[in-house]
Amino acid sequence: MDESGCVFCEIVEGTRDARVVYESHSVIALIDPRQANPGHVLVIPKEHFPDIYALSAEAGSEIMRAVILLSRTVRKAFELDGLSIWQSNGRGAHQEVPHVHFHIHPRKTDDGLLRVYPRWLDRTPDEELDSYADRVRQALMEG
Amino acid sequence: MDESGCVFCEIVEGTRDARVVYESHSVIALIDPRQANPGHVLVIPKEHFPDIYALSAEAGSEIMRAVILLSRTVRKAFELDGLSIWQSNGRGAHQEVPHVHFHIHPRKTDDGLLRVYPRWLDRTPDEELDSYADRVRQALMEG
Repeated sequence: MDESGCVFCEIVEGTRDARVVYESHSVIALIDPRQANPGHVLVIPKEHFPDIYALSAEAGSEIMRAVILLSRTVRKAFELDGLSIWQSNGRGAHQEVPHVHFHIHPRKTDDGLLRVYPRWLDRTPDEELDSYADRVRQALMEG
Repeated sequence: MDESGCVFCEIVEGTRDARVVYESHSVIALIDPRQANPGHVLVIPKEHFPDIYALSAEAGSEIMRAVILLSRTVRKAFELDGLSIWQSNGRGAHQEVPHVHFHIHPRKTDDGLLRVYPRWLDRTPDEELDSYADRVRQALMEG
Protein backbone atom coordinates (compact mmCIF):
# COMPACT_ATOMS: atom_id res chain seq x y z
CA MET A 1 0.00 0.00 0.00
CA ASP A 2 1.26 3.48 -0.81
CA GLU A 3 0.53 6.89 0.67
CA SER A 4 -3.00 7.22 -0.73
CA GLY A 5 -5.48 6.58 2.04
CA CYS A 6 -2.77 6.25 4.67
CA VAL A 7 -4.05 7.77 7.91
CA PHE A 8 -0.56 8.59 9.16
CA CYS A 9 0.29 10.41 5.92
CA GLU A 10 -2.93 12.39 6.37
CA ILE A 11 -1.87 13.34 9.90
CA VAL A 12 1.56 14.39 8.63
CA GLU A 13 -0.07 16.48 5.89
CA GLY A 14 -2.48 18.03 8.38
CA THR A 15 -5.64 16.78 6.69
CA ARG A 16 -6.52 14.51 9.62
CA ASP A 17 -6.65 15.56 13.26
CA ALA A 18 -4.30 14.04 15.80
CA ARG A 19 -2.74 14.97 19.12
CA VAL A 20 0.79 15.63 17.91
CA VAL A 21 3.12 16.11 20.86
CA TYR A 22 6.49 16.28 19.09
CA GLU A 23 7.79 17.15 15.64
CA SER A 24 11.23 17.18 14.05
CA HIS A 25 12.23 17.56 10.40
CA SER A 26 11.43 13.92 9.63
CA VAL A 27 9.43 12.49 12.53
CA ILE A 28 6.27 13.19 14.53
CA ALA A 29 4.99 11.72 17.79
CA LEU A 30 1.33 11.59 18.74
CA ILE A 31 -0.97 10.31 21.45
CA ASP A 32 -2.39 6.88 20.56
CA PRO A 33 -6.23 6.96 20.70
CA ARG A 34 -6.17 3.81 22.83
CA GLN A 35 -4.57 4.25 26.22
CA ALA A 36 -4.44 1.00 28.19
CA ASN A 37 -2.20 2.97 30.55
CA PRO A 38 -1.96 6.78 30.29
CA GLY A 39 0.96 7.97 28.18
CA HIS A 40 0.81 5.64 25.16
CA VAL A 41 2.63 7.48 22.35
CA LEU A 42 3.36 6.65 18.70
CA VAL A 43 6.50 7.73 16.86
CA ILE A 44 6.26 7.77 13.07
CA PRO A 45 8.39 9.04 10.20
CA LYS A 46 6.89 11.80 8.04
CA GLU A 47 7.86 9.89 4.92
CA HIS A 48 5.70 6.89 4.04
CA PHE A 49 7.66 3.70 4.73
CA PRO A 50 5.26 0.76 4.91
CA ASP A 51 7.32 -1.32 7.35
CA ILE A 52 10.71 -1.87 8.99
CA TYR A 53 12.08 -3.57 5.86
CA ALA A 54 11.53 -0.40 3.82
CA LEU A 55 12.71 2.08 6.45
CA SER A 56 15.78 4.15 5.56
CA ALA A 57 18.71 4.30 7.98
CA GLU A 58 18.34 8.10 8.14
CA ALA A 59 14.66 7.99 9.09
CA GLY A 60 15.35 5.09 11.44
CA SER A 61 18.03 7.08 13.22
CA GLU A 62 15.69 10.02 13.71
CA ILE A 63 12.91 7.70 14.90
CA MET A 64 15.23 6.23 17.52
CA ARG A 65 16.27 9.69 18.66
CA ALA A 66 12.57 10.53 19.15
CA VAL A 67 11.84 7.18 20.85
CA ILE A 68 14.58 7.86 23.41
CA LEU A 69 13.40 11.43 24.00
CA LEU A 70 9.72 10.48 24.30
CA SER A 71 10.50 7.52 26.55
CA ARG A 72 12.28 9.83 28.98
CA THR A 73 9.43 12.32 28.71
CA VAL A 74 6.66 9.78 29.27
CA ARG A 75 8.51 8.41 32.29
CA LYS A 76 8.62 11.93 33.71
CA ALA A 77 5.02 12.85 32.86
CA PHE A 78 3.24 9.69 34.06
CA GLU A 79 3.52 7.27 36.94
CA LEU A 80 4.82 4.02 35.55
CA ASP A 81 6.61 0.83 36.61
CA GLY A 82 8.11 0.12 33.21
CA LEU A 83 7.96 0.98 29.54
CA SER A 84 7.46 -1.27 26.53
CA ILE A 85 8.43 -0.34 23.00
CA TRP A 86 7.08 -2.34 20.12
CA GLN A 87 6.65 -2.23 16.37
CA SER A 88 4.67 -4.59 14.12
CA ASN A 89 5.21 -5.65 10.52
CA GLY A 90 2.81 -7.61 8.36
CA ARG A 91 -0.38 -9.49 8.94
CA GLY A 92 1.20 -12.16 11.15
CA ALA A 93 2.28 -9.40 13.55
CA HIS A 94 -1.14 -7.68 13.37
CA GLN A 95 0.22 -4.50 11.79
CA GLU A 96 -2.81 -2.21 11.58
CA VAL A 97 -1.55 0.89 9.73
CA PRO A 98 0.83 0.22 6.83
CA HIS A 99 3.10 3.16 7.70
CA VAL A 100 5.90 2.18 10.06
CA HIS A 101 5.24 3.28 13.65
CA PHE A 102 6.80 2.61 17.04
CA HIS A 103 4.64 2.28 20.14
CA ILE A 104 5.91 3.70 23.43
CA HIS A 105 3.76 2.14 26.10
CA PRO A 106 3.86 2.82 29.86
CA ARG A 107 3.59 -0.29 31.99
CA LYS A 108 2.11 -0.91 35.42
CA THR A 109 3.02 -3.89 37.55
CA ASP A 110 0.87 -6.90 36.56
CA ASP A 111 -1.11 -4.90 33.95
CA GLY A 112 -1.29 -8.01 31.73
CA LEU A 113 -0.28 -6.10 28.60
CA LEU A 114 2.18 -7.31 25.98
CA ARG A 115 2.33 -10.92 26.99
CA VAL A 116 5.10 -12.20 24.74
CA TYR A 117 4.73 -15.96 25.15
CA PRO A 118 1.37 -17.70 25.65
CA ARG A 119 3.08 -20.38 27.77
CA TRP A 120 6.47 -21.20 29.25
CA LEU A 121 9.07 -21.56 26.54
CA ASP A 122 12.12 -23.76 27.15
CA ARG A 123 15.52 -22.93 25.78
CA THR A 124 15.82 -24.18 22.21
CA PRO A 125 18.25 -27.15 21.71
CA ASP A 126 21.82 -26.15 20.78
CA GLU A 127 21.83 -27.81 17.35
CA GLU A 128 18.74 -25.86 16.33
CA LEU A 129 20.23 -22.60 17.59
CA ASP A 130 23.41 -23.33 15.64
CA SER A 131 21.47 -23.96 12.44
CA TYR A 132 19.48 -20.72 12.84
CA ALA A 133 22.70 -18.77 13.40
CA ASP A 134 24.12 -20.30 10.22
CA ARG A 135 21.04 -19.31 8.24
CA VAL A 136 21.20 -15.69 9.42
CA ARG A 137 24.96 -15.44 8.72
CA GLN A 138 24.46 -16.99 5.27
CA ALA A 139 21.63 -14.60 4.38
CA LEU A 140 23.70 -11.63 5.62
CA MET A 141 26.62 -12.68 3.41
CA GLU A 142 24.35 -12.98 0.38
CA GLY A 143 23.28 -9.39 1.14
CA MET B 1 22.98 -2.23 37.83
CA ASP B 2 26.30 -1.59 36.12
CA GLU B 3 28.43 -3.77 33.85
CA SER B 4 29.61 -6.16 36.55
CA GLY B 5 27.73 -9.42 36.19
CA CYS B 6 25.94 -8.28 33.03
CA VAL B 7 25.58 -11.26 30.71
CA PHE B 8 25.45 -9.07 27.59
CA CYS B 9 28.65 -7.28 28.59
CA GLU B 10 30.28 -10.70 29.04
CA ILE B 11 29.15 -11.69 25.54
CA VAL B 12 30.54 -8.43 24.13
CA GLU B 13 33.85 -9.04 25.96
CA GLY B 14 33.97 -12.62 24.72
CA THR B 15 33.95 -14.21 28.17
CA ARG B 16 30.52 -15.79 27.63
CA ASP B 17 29.50 -17.87 24.63
CA ALA B 18 26.76 -16.68 22.30
CA ARG B 19 25.72 -17.14 18.69
CA VAL B 20 26.75 -13.75 17.38
CA VAL B 21 25.50 -13.29 13.83
CA TYR B 22 26.40 -9.62 13.23
CA GLU B 23 28.89 -7.11 14.59
CA SER B 24 29.58 -3.44 13.89
CA HIS B 25 31.78 -0.98 15.77
CA SER B 26 29.13 -0.40 18.46
CA VAL B 27 26.48 -3.13 18.12
CA ILE B 28 26.18 -6.91 18.04
CA ALA B 29 23.29 -9.19 17.10
CA LEU B 30 22.86 -12.70 18.40
CA ILE B 31 20.45 -15.62 18.29
CA ASP B 32 18.08 -15.58 21.30
CA PRO B 33 18.27 -18.92 23.16
CA ARG B 34 14.46 -19.11 23.12
CA GLN B 35 12.98 -19.47 19.66
CA ALA B 36 9.18 -19.51 19.73
CA ASN B 37 9.50 -19.18 15.95
CA PRO B 38 12.84 -19.77 14.22
CA GLY B 39 14.82 -16.59 13.62
CA HIS B 40 14.45 -14.73 16.93
CA VAL B 41 17.40 -12.32 17.09
CA LEU B 42 18.58 -9.78 19.69
CA VAL B 43 20.30 -6.51 18.82
CA ILE B 44 22.35 -4.93 21.62
CA PRO B 45 24.83 -2.08 21.94
CA LYS B 46 28.38 -3.00 22.96
CA GLU B 47 28.37 -0.25 25.55
CA HIS B 48 26.38 -0.94 28.72
CA PHE B 49 23.22 1.17 28.69
CA PRO B 50 20.75 -0.25 31.23
CA ASP B 51 17.61 0.86 29.39
CA ILE B 52 16.09 3.10 26.70
CA TYR B 53 16.23 6.13 29.00
CA ALA B 54 20.01 5.87 29.26
CA LEU B 55 20.68 5.05 25.59
CA SER B 56 22.76 7.57 23.64
CA ALA B 57 21.48 8.88 20.31
CA GLU B 58 24.62 7.56 18.61
CA ALA B 59 24.22 4.02 19.93
CA GLY B 60 20.47 4.20 19.25
CA SER B 61 21.09 5.16 15.64
CA GLU B 62 23.45 2.23 15.16
CA ILE B 63 20.99 -0.13 16.87
CA MET B 64 18.25 0.97 14.47
CA ARG B 65 20.54 0.46 11.48
CA ALA B 66 21.17 -3.10 12.71
CA VAL B 67 17.48 -3.71 13.46
CA ILE B 68 16.57 -2.75 9.89
CA LEU B 69 19.34 -4.90 8.40
CA LEU B 70 18.57 -7.93 10.57
CA SER B 71 14.82 -7.61 9.96
CA ARG B 72 15.41 -7.82 6.22
CA THR B 73 17.82 -10.69 6.73
CA VAL B 74 15.51 -12.69 8.99
CA ARG B 75 12.67 -12.23 6.51
CA LYS B 76 14.90 -13.65 3.81
CA ALA B 77 16.30 -16.53 5.85
CA PHE B 78 13.06 -17.83 7.43
CA GLU B 79 9.48 -18.37 6.39
CA LEU B 80 7.39 -15.81 8.22
CA ASP B 81 4.05 -14.03 8.04
CA GLY B 82 5.16 -10.98 9.99
CA LEU B 83 7.82 -9.60 12.26
CA SER B 84 7.54 -8.06 15.72
CA ILE B 85 10.12 -5.80 17.28
CA TRP B 86 10.02 -5.10 20.98
CA GLN B 87 12.11 -3.73 23.78
CA SER B 88 11.39 -3.79 27.53
CA ASN B 89 12.35 -1.36 30.30
CA GLY B 90 11.96 -1.93 34.01
CA ARG B 91 10.21 -4.46 36.18
CA GLY B 92 6.70 -3.51 35.02
CA ALA B 93 7.73 -4.39 31.46
CA HIS B 94 9.46 -7.62 32.57
CA GLN B 95 12.92 -6.49 31.47
CA GLU B 96 15.13 -9.52 32.14
CA VAL B 97 18.66 -8.32 31.34
CA PRO B 98 19.52 -4.77 32.46
CA HIS B 99 21.43 -3.96 29.26
CA VAL B 100 19.22 -2.45 26.58
CA HIS B 101 18.30 -4.98 23.86
CA PHE B 102 15.86 -5.09 20.96
CA HIS B 103 14.05 -8.29 20.05
CA ILE B 104 13.46 -9.11 16.38
CA HIS B 105 10.84 -11.83 16.36
CA PRO B 106 9.43 -13.68 13.32
CA ARG B 107 5.68 -14.15 13.41
CA LYS B 108 3.43 -16.88 12.06
CA THR B 109 -0.28 -16.38 11.49
CA ASP B 110 -2.19 -17.01 14.74
CA ASP B 111 0.96 -17.93 16.67
CA GLY B 112 -0.50 -16.33 19.81
CA LEU B 113 2.72 -14.46 20.59
CA LEU B 114 2.96 -10.85 21.73
CA ARG B 115 -0.65 -10.30 22.63
CA VAL B 116 -0.68 -6.57 23.36
CA TYR B 117 -4.07 -6.17 25.04
CA PRO B 118 -5.66 -8.84 27.26
CA ARG B 119 -9.12 -7.72 26.11
CA TRP B 120 -10.78 -5.35 23.67
CA LEU B 121 -9.78 -1.79 24.39
CA ASP B 122 -12.11 1.04 23.40
CA ARG B 123 -10.87 4.37 22.18
CA THR B 124 -10.06 6.62 25.15
CA PRO B 125 -12.42 9.63 25.61
CA ASP B 126 -11.27 12.85 23.92
CA GLU B 127 -10.88 14.87 27.12
CA GLU B 128 -8.55 12.26 28.57
CA LEU B 129 -6.51 12.14 25.35
CA ASP B 130 -6.27 15.94 25.41
CA SER B 131 -5.01 15.94 28.97
CA TYR B 132 -2.38 13.27 28.22
CA ALA B 133 -1.18 15.28 25.22
CA ASP B 134 -0.86 18.34 27.44
CA ARG B 135 1.17 16.42 30.00
CA VAL B 136 3.61 15.13 27.38
CA ARG B 137 4.01 18.58 25.80
CA GLN B 138 4.54 20.16 29.21
CA ALA B 139 7.18 17.58 30.20
CA LEU B 140 8.94 18.06 26.85
CA MET B 141 9.05 21.82 27.37
CA GLU B 142 10.50 21.38 30.85
CA GLY B 143 13.21 19.28 29.22
